[in-house]
Amino acid sequence: MKTTKSIIPILALFLLANLSFAQEYVGSKKDIDQILKNAENFSQYVMNANYKMIGESYTPDAKIFPNNMNILTGKDSILAYWKLPEGIRTIHHKLMPEEIKVIGNEAYDYGYYEGVTKKADGSESPWKGKYVVIWRKENGNWKMYLDIWNSVR
Amino acid sequence: MKTTKSIIPILALFLLANLSFAQEYVGSKKDIDQILKNAENFSQYVMNANYKMIGESYTPDAKIFPNNMNILTGKDSILAYWKLPEGIRTIHHKLMPEEIKVIGNEAYDYGYYEGVTKKADGSESPWKGKYVVIWRKENGNWKMYLDIWNSVR
Repeated sequence: MKTTKSIIPILALFLLANLSFAQEYVGSKKDIDQILKNAENFSQYVMNANYKMIGESYTPDAKIFPNNMNILTGKDSILAYWKLPEGIRTIHHKLMPEEIKVIGNEAYDYGYYEGVTKKADGSESPWKGKYVVIWRKENGNWKMYLDIWNSVR
Repeated sequence: MKTTKSIIPILALFLLANLSFAQEYVGSKKDIDQILKNAENFSQYVMNANYKMIGESYTPDAKIFPNNMNILTGKDSILAYWKLPEGIRTIHHKLMPEEIKVIGNEAYDYGYYEGVTKKADGSESPWKGKYVVIWRKENGNWKMYLDIWNSVR
């Protein structure tokens, strides 16, 4: 009896300790796995300057919210934003979700991101930020509908 | 017969013209009205420096994403961010939603915001930005769970 009782606070502590560090994913394994995979692929497309697939990562009516600009709507505006000048490359790009929650055909996702830009003169500048993305399932595939972010100094 | 046919493209044009300017609200009238009202109230709380009600506008586990900072979680961190130094006031604050979509007990909401800060020396500085908010219905009332924004120059 005593053993049964005393295990409860230990279990609670264990769960709490894990919760405070763990990512929280709510949704079917299939949906969560596809969102995580698409986020990883997106980073790969950015590093490869694969603008076709960057475009495919967004819904046709997607909106992005870059700092100091108006909301940009649709593939053309979004690609014009992502397109880097000749000689400049993103050599590192990583999304680090903290929570993803699927609600029907939409999901919200927030977390941190980091990257490194390599300039034409060879110098590298690292950056870090945080984001909120609204994903939408279209024709069975998850794409970004809203994509907003800002810096972490 | 001719009249019936020719009215269709005119109607379509009329609808399109309206769609491109109108806000898009998806959800029950009750939910949308409460979210719009709570957003308006939030602006009022900011202008009145009503920190108790600013805190009440967020869920207990809410996260805000101010530029150049880490994600801030929970009422204490959020209020510490909103609290203005003595003598500084927000004399104008307005949220201008472009789209709100209620999905069960959550809703996403994005749009623009504007405000004016009055400094201790009496000078006023206006600002404008864009935001994405995830609202969550808790005990029948809509509160902000995720709140991210950045500037429009």
